[in-house]
Amino acid sequence: MPRHAPVNALESPRFSGIRTFSRLPHTQDLDGVDVAVFGIPFDTATTYRTGARFGPGAVREMSAMLRTYNPSLEVNIYDHLSVIDYGDLPTVPGYIEDTYARVVAAMSPVLAAGVVPVGIGGDHSVTLAELRAVAAARGPVGFLQFDSHADTWDEYFGRKYNHGTPFRRAVEEGLIDTRRAIQVGMRGSLYGPEDLAQSRELGFELRTTDDVRRDGLAATLEEIRRRVGGGPVFLTFDVDFIDPSFAPGTGTPEVGGFSSREAQELMRGLVGIDFIGMDLVEVLPAHDPAGITALIGANVIFEFLSVLALGRRDRA
Amino acid sequence: MPRHAPVNALESPRFSGIRTFSRLPHTQDLDGVDVAVFGIPFDTATTYRTGARFGPGAVREMSAMLRTYNPSLEVNIYDHLSVIDYGDLPTVPGYIEDTYARVVAAMSPVLAAGVVPVGIGGDHSVTLAELRAVAAARGPVGFLQFDSHADTWDEYFGRKYNHGTPFRRAVEEGLIDTRRAIQVGMRGSLYGPEDLAQSRELGFELRTTDDVRRDGLAATLEEIRRRVGGGPVFLTFDVDFIDPSFAPGTGTPEVGGFSSREAQELMRGLVGIDFIGMDLVEVLPAHDPAGITALIGANVIFEFLSVLALGRRDRA
Amino acid sequence: MPRHAPVNALESPRFSGIRTFSRLPHTQDLDGVDVAVFGIPFDTATTYRTGARFGPGAVREMSAMLRTYNPSLEVNIYDHLSVIDYGDLPTVPGYIEDTYARVVAAMSPVLAAGVVPVGIGGDHSVTLAELRAVAAARGPVGFLQFDSHADTWDEYFGRKYNHGTPFRRAVEEGLIDTRRAIQVGMRGSLYGPEDLAQSRELGFELRTTDDVRRDGLAATLEEIRRRVGGGPVFLTFDVDFIDPSFAPGTGTPEVGGFSSREAQELMRGLVGIDFIGMDLVEVLPAHDPAGITALIGANVIFEFLSVLALGRRDRA
Amino acid sequence: MPRHAPVNALESPRFSGIRTFSRLPHTQDLDGVDVAVFGIPFDTATTYRTGARFGPGAVREMSAMLRTYNPSLEVNIYDHLSVIDYGDLPTVPGYIEDTYARVVAAMSPVLAAGVVPVGIGGDHSVTLAELRAVAAARGPVGFLQFDSHADTWDEYFGRKYNHGTPFRRAVEEGLIDTRRAIQVGMRGSLYGPEDLAQSRELGFELRTTDDVRRDGLAATLEEIRRRVGGGPVFLTFDVDFIDPSFAPGTGTPEVGGFSSREAQELMRGLVGIDFIGMDLVEVLPAHDPAGITALIGANVIFEFLSVLALGRRDRA
Amino acid sequence: MPRHAPVNALESPRFSGIRTFSRLPHTQDLDGVDVAVFGIPFDTATTYRTGARFGPGAVREMSAMLRTYNPSLEVNIYDHLSVIDYGDLPTVPGYIEDTYARVVAAMSPVLAAGVVPVGIGGDHSVTLAELRAVAAARGPVGFLQFDSHADTWDEYFGRKYNHGTPFRRAVEEGLIDTRRAIQVGMRGSLYGPEDLAQSRELGFELRTTDDVRRDGLAATLEEIRRRVGGGPVFLTFDVDFIDPSFAPGTGTPEVGGFSSREAQELMRGLVGIDFIGMDLVEVLPAHDPAGITALIGANVIFEFLSVLALGRRDRA
Amino acid sequence: MPRHAPVNALESPRFSGIRTFSRLPHTQDLDGVDVAVFGIPFDTATTYRTGARFGPGAVREMSAMLRTYNPSLEVNIYDHLSVIDYGDLPTVPGYIEDTYARVVAAMSPVLAAGVVPVGIGGDHSVTLAELRAVAAARGPVGFLQFDSHADTWDEYFGRKYNHGTPFRRAVEEGLIDTRRAIQVGMRGSLYGPEDLAQSRELGFELRTTDDVRRDGLAATLEEIRRRVGGGPVFLTFDVDFIDPSFAPGTGTPEVGGFSSREAQELMRGLVGIDFIGMDLVEVLPAHDPAGITALIGANVIFEFLSVLALGRRDRA
Repeated sequence: MPRHAPVNALESPRFSGIRTFSRLPHTQDLDGVDVAVFGIPFDTATTYRTGARFGPGAVREMSAMLRTYNPSLEVNIYDHLSVIDYGDLPTVPGYIEDTYARVVAAMSPVLAAGVVPVGIGGDHSVTLAELRAVAAARGPVGFLQFDSHADTWDEYFGRKYNHGTPFRRAVEEGLIDTRRAIQVGMRGSLYGPEDLAQSRELGFELRTTDDVRRDGLAATLEEIRRRVGGGPVFLTFDVDFIDPSFAPGTGTPEVGGFSSREAQELMRGLVGIDFIGMDLVEVLPAHDPAGITALIGANVIFEFLSVLALGRRDRA
Repeated sequence: MPRHAPVNALESPRFSGIRTFSRLPHTQDLDGVDVAVFGIPFDTATTYRTGARFGPGAVREMSAMLRTYNPSLEVNIYDHLSVIDYGDLPTVPGYIEDTYARVVAAMSPVLAAGVVPVGIGGDHSVTLAELRAVAAARGPVGFLQFDSHADTWDEYFGRKYNHGTPFRRAVEEGLIDTRRAIQVGMRGSLYGPEDLAQSRELGFELRTTDDVRRDGLAATLEEIRRRVGGGPVFLTFDVDFIDPSFAPGTGTPEVGGFSSREAQELMRGLVGIDFIGMDLVEVLPAHDPAGITALIGANVIFEFLSVLALGRRDRA
Repeated sequence: MPRHAPVNALESPRFSGIRTFSRLPHTQDLDGVDVAVFGIPFDTATTYRTGARFGPGAVREMSAMLRTYNPSLEVNIYDHLSVIDYGDLPTVPGYIEDTYARVVAAMSPVLAAGVVPVGIGGDHSVTLAELRAVAAARGPVGFLQFDSHADTWDEYFGRKYNHGTPFRRAVEEGLIDTRRAIQVGMRGSLYGPEDLAQSRELGFELRTTDDVRRDGLAATLEEIRRRVGGGPVFLTFDVDFIDPSFAPGTGTPEVGGFSSREAQELMRGLVGIDFIGMDLVEVLPAHDPAGITALIGANVIFEFLSVLALGRRDRA
Repeated sequence: MPRHAPVNALESPRFSGIRTFSRLPHTQDLDGVDVAVFGIPFDTATTYRTGARFGPGAVREMSAMLRTYNPSLEVNIYDHLSVIDYGDLPTVPGYIEDTYARVVAAMSPVLAAGVVPVGIGGDHSVTLAELRAVAAARGPVGFLQFDSHADTWDEYFGRKYNHGTPFRRAVEEGLIDTRRAIQVGMRGSLYGPEDLAQSRELGFELRTTDDVRRDGLAATLEEIRRRVGGGPVFLTFDVDFIDPSFAPGTGTPEVGGFSSREAQELMRGLVGIDFIGMDLVEVLPAHDPAGITALIGANVIFEFLSVLALGRRDRA
Repeated sequence: MPRHAPVNALESPRFSGIRTFSRLPHTQDLDGVDVAVFGIPFDTATTYRTGARFGPGAVREMSAMLRTYNPSLEVNIYDHLSVIDYGDLPTVPGYIEDTYARVVAAMSPVLAAGVVPVGIGGDHSVTLAELRAVAAARGPVGFLQFDSHADTWDEYFGRKYNHGTPFRRAVEEGLIDTRRAIQVGMRGSLYGPEDLAQSRELGFELRTTDDVRRDGLAATLEEIRRRVGGGPVFLTFDVDFIDPSFAPGTGTPEVGGFSSREAQELMRGLVGIDFIGMDLVEVLPAHDPAGITALIGANVIFEFLSVLALGRRDRA
Repeated sequence: MPRHAPVNALESPRFSGIRTFSRLPHTQDLDGVDVAVFGIPFDTATTYRTGARFGPGAVREMSAMLRTYNPSLEVNIYDHLSVIDYGDLPTVPGYIEDTYARVVAAMSPVLAAGVVPVGIGGDHSVTLAELRAVAAARGPVGFLQFDSHADTWDEYFGRKYNHGTPFRRAVEEGLIDTRRAIQVGMRGSLYGPEDLAQSRELGFELRTTDDVRRDGLAATLEEIRRRVGGGPVFLTFDVDFIDPSFAPGTGTPEVGGFSSREAQELMRGLVGIDFIGMDLVEVLPAHDPAGITALIGANVIFEFLSVLALGRRDRA
């Protein structure tokens, strides 16, 4: 029986208490734990608006609104999973590669304990560190990315590491099994036609927002399942996948995106995939006056936990 | 012929003058009046973000943008209805039941005069007081609720009265004819599967957001009509029915909601129902930096008045 | 070969440098130039919220996020067009007709050089001045307006010139060839049924938001093409065409509008029309806390430039 | 005995009711009235940030926090004065001189009834209209201006009327008795040394912020009294007299200004002067996120009413 | 040697980690603890702007900027004190007296353990509960209040308990030793001269802002010391003591207040007083866009802890 | 005669045109130029709130409010100096030392041309690069720092370069002549007593805010002059020297600071010092909702230019 579950909001008001994700216990004791949610407060690798270092705090704040039961998927997460807030991983503001080293080291005990990591960014560069840690423990992984940008550029300003390049690096480092990798939602102006071509050359399947609009959500989900197959998969969700009206608080917003409803439908359609980790990145609270970006970010994680819980239930 | 109509914005600029709803006269003289719009500035019963006590002021401010003719329904409200801004009903900040008593007493002369009450909240707890007043005058009423939450929980923190419980109380008190009652739009995480079941056990028909998405707006409207039938109906519209991107300024936002366009279509589809009162609740201006939540709130009331006006015209 | 193109954001960060539109060179040298983007910072003719005088600055700021290649239309704008930021046209705050005279005079050399003008408002009154300049150079023009308001009222407060009247004036002055003129997107409450009728009496074709919703975007685009035909066309895009959730920062928001995605689709559907100028108006940054209104405004211009570039390519 | 006094906030909460100044009755019946507070919602004459047309609404909103007794001056305003909220005077957005004509006409019955006018701007151009009305009724008046700018420039952009020129115009029109006129608080960068010299050439005494800092508040007050003498005086208070930290919401903020405490001390030091009218201008709520500018604006009027009340008491 | 001290910001960035006060450990284990900081997230008793229930979270967020050494007092707090973040005390939103009961019960083990309680409000009504708990443990206490309001009104809206009445209630209940009680900083408009008189009749010494300005900070501090004497004293600090320019985020701002510098000087002047508890109340983050109110709130507590630490050091 | 001066705001409105500093020409032609103002948009070295990369844009925006004549110093800057906006220096977001190299290289032609550099940050780390460039051209320089932090820590998170360490590095690198170096304004909590001691050990004179308050501004200015002597001096002004109420938009605000008036007085007191460069750093617009921080930043530069202009005049 799970040890860890949220404080009950019918008894203790949701605005009360130290802010942890979904009012879960904050601990680094991994014994009996299924999922560890943690922040990676880092925005040094950002090319436009900075501030995502405050993303974990904002997502935790709004996650107080999450309850425990998902009526669309008909599952109570905490019947099947023991989840904790593990705190924030160590970072070195101003230093990307130092930060990567610390994040990899900090994730190691989590992965060693067989716990599913759920990271809250931070800018998208942090996913490279997470993938290094995951691949070190599990080998190259299947990969699903919801994002308005492919993030497979080679360099910015003559440098290899920033939030526009992590997935090119990940492929180069052999962290992703590209035969089971898919990027979904790319849109917005580009530097040239080669921008998306290079993702495909790296081995990713890529479905633009135009593709998803043309084919529909159901067909897209089918294609995702087909691509990632039955093996372990890491999910990375950049909140700028969602339209700026629903998610204004992000560093590189792109108009013409998906609604929060569509994001929920896509997430709910992932039931059955064997996820071994995820992250939710690029929430930037300084441009999120009503907190709605952090709220949809928290909900994306809620849907992920629901999918995991169903997997646990069905395997039990 | 109606006595009361808005100031003409072609002659007097909309930003001018004391803020009343839709620039209508502010009076408590009910003679010849068809509809009285009033505020119920109260947020003591709120379980998360407070501030809805400033909702009536914000809705009045943005209602200056309303004109008089509804081109979708092809009706000029003020050709058929005399409408006033009755001011705010008395409340007792910090004291829920005291407030209820004052609201009920204050609504009594309005109802006695045969005037249709249109309340601007305030948190959703105020609807219980309105229903008490209406039921005292008219007996148990048909009931239509647009909301992301059913608000039929039994208790929060060991207490019976707050903005999560009013409609359980209303049923217990016999204020609603549940055979003619329907709740539309429930979504978001819950405490458990029983949360929605209990609404149904109380006698409400309940259509979740998932239901409405699956069936479509037209079928939903048909079901609403079928359910509420030909008798008198009270409409309560919680602005969190609408998605946070369109309505960020509310106390308990739930992602994955309806657009303002869909809200308008639903409201316009209610022509012919015999409404005897309505309210629009949970506008929280402190989290509404551009005023768009108050604006959609004002428009919901505008659509309601249009529906009423058509009813008057067709009966005339 | 084009002389002018944006600074490359892969080399120089987008937040760097003097703010020009899309990081284009700021010059008034028109030699070899195809398109001149300029601001018309003016809000004196506004009937509700003022502040659109800061619209050009805000659109320039967010336009730093634009790249050069449009993947949906498969064109790199700057392969085909030389575009500059011409700066702001002179205005006289507080004086509408003085401003018109200065704008007309300032546009004259641009038009004489055969350069396509792209104006950034400012309130919608500025379009009358632009049309005067364009018609002086080219004669009466075809006309396409995306807007939630027809802006063909006769007078406000007893005066002929403000942002609610420019297109009645333009017809009276013979600036528009009404047989090739169409207004798209009207919605929201009106003063009476005559409001839209008068546009039709002036000779405009008019498609309300309700019409567009009923007929679909494709049919609407077909109707637009049919109406404007093969001759030269001026496009005016009021950002309030788009719903307030996507574009909160505007002076007279109307709920129930179009998404940014739909705006993009409409713009992309205009390929082949012979545009001789455009403007994007009514961005009001004081009510746009996250800059998303300015961002969609910049993107509308980006789509326009893409359409122009395709026309150039196809003619080449 | 005074007929009109504010609603009691110990009985009816301050956030309740239609927003009038200090919760006073809104009426245009001048019978028995001593002071009429009204708005002049106008910002067409603004040279930088627009939005002061919403100033009266914002000042009314925050004036709900005013109580009735001034402990520093030891007077209850409403023991001695009957005060009403007269509503807003008519304006013509976009047209300065039309607005002046309407304001002058609208003030005429107020002055004819011997009521002291208290205007809430609006940009500073409105004071010229008020002075025209006052001088028409009373002849040239003594004049006291608290402001960071002298507003005696001759022209902006080739035009005579805007918010930088009203007091040059007022002198030219003979509305002010310059022998009894003083401007206090000028600071900030200028176009040249002649800017302040020209005020003096027009006949004003002028005390810069530097002068006031050097001489102290007490000496400044003494000089004000000496200058304006025993005759009737009009007071105009531009909220930008106060430092932007205390009053960020204004169109032309100048750093290095006075604190709210100093503003209160100056106002309280005016007891005994025979004021026949005042205004408080340039509150711009779009740049006042916490409402503190409107709050200090309301307090300046509160101090003015206290001074008037003491005058009434002492004469009684 | 103290067990508990903040995380070192030279090693772990201040934006990292679960938000606790000053990055102290969050625990309810009182063993070896000198001071327990806790939140009392409650705003039901507020008469104007609600939202102070989010005060504890905001103060914790900004307290990350506090370091450990106070250079003005030359003391490192954590050399002398072991301080924890105890979390939030239980409250019942919407129910004042229920909340009081829970707060009193929750404080009981803290006081029993001889730990100094430091509460973060919440509206000022919570201080009555704290005083009940403290007096139950220690008997009637000396009392020092920094505030712009005396909060000794008798009733609001016919009810005895809200944030304007706690100190009348405290005297009636015998919680305060009024011979050793002083209120400092009262200012702003009142309902009548009796408002301050009644504080004095209850036995408080009262020094208005005018008094403090006239006498100076040093004399005020001397008077405070003289009044509270050598016995145990409870300090309550309402953030509205400070001027709204420094502390805009509060429910009932009053202009003409003290600077943050003056607040620091007053706090630092309290060295030697035997404080047995304190609270800092009325921080309202929804009106604090840059977080400066929460920041000064955190600093007031920092100064308090410094004073306590000096007391500990000097007694050691 | 100077070639470059601002656009005249009496003729062209201040909100018009491409945003350059004080509406000066944007050019990189240094011929005949006395002062080059440029941005250094960089915030990678920030330890708390990021976003200062947008500081140059914000300061330029608000600098439109600057006129040309300084009435307190009685000088028209542009009678004596030719000033340009040189644009932004190149930076590498995410990479501190790369950025330093680019900044040093970019400043080289400015210094070679004998032009006084005026940098707009960016976080305070950029000053190290500026000092490298200046010292390379001129040798070790006198140094005056207004700041709430000494920024002479040794390391953060094990790394040598960030915005808390530049002046230790500068001393180590021999860029500053510490015998002529003074730091003014330090305040706020510290890690320990050694924090300020280490500045003194490095050779700086250091005057805390407490020192300045005790001694007064005049004595402080006298001490500054004495210390920096007659040789060339670089001035660095961190906007957090000023209190957060006047300057909320900064990354590491410290309460208890100086007013904008005091900052002006200090700047004006520097007449006669031989400044060879300056910068104004740490303006963070995302936390500056009304732009007042950027405004005081622009004014600090205005005062600096006035001081330079007086120097030029007096030497002429």
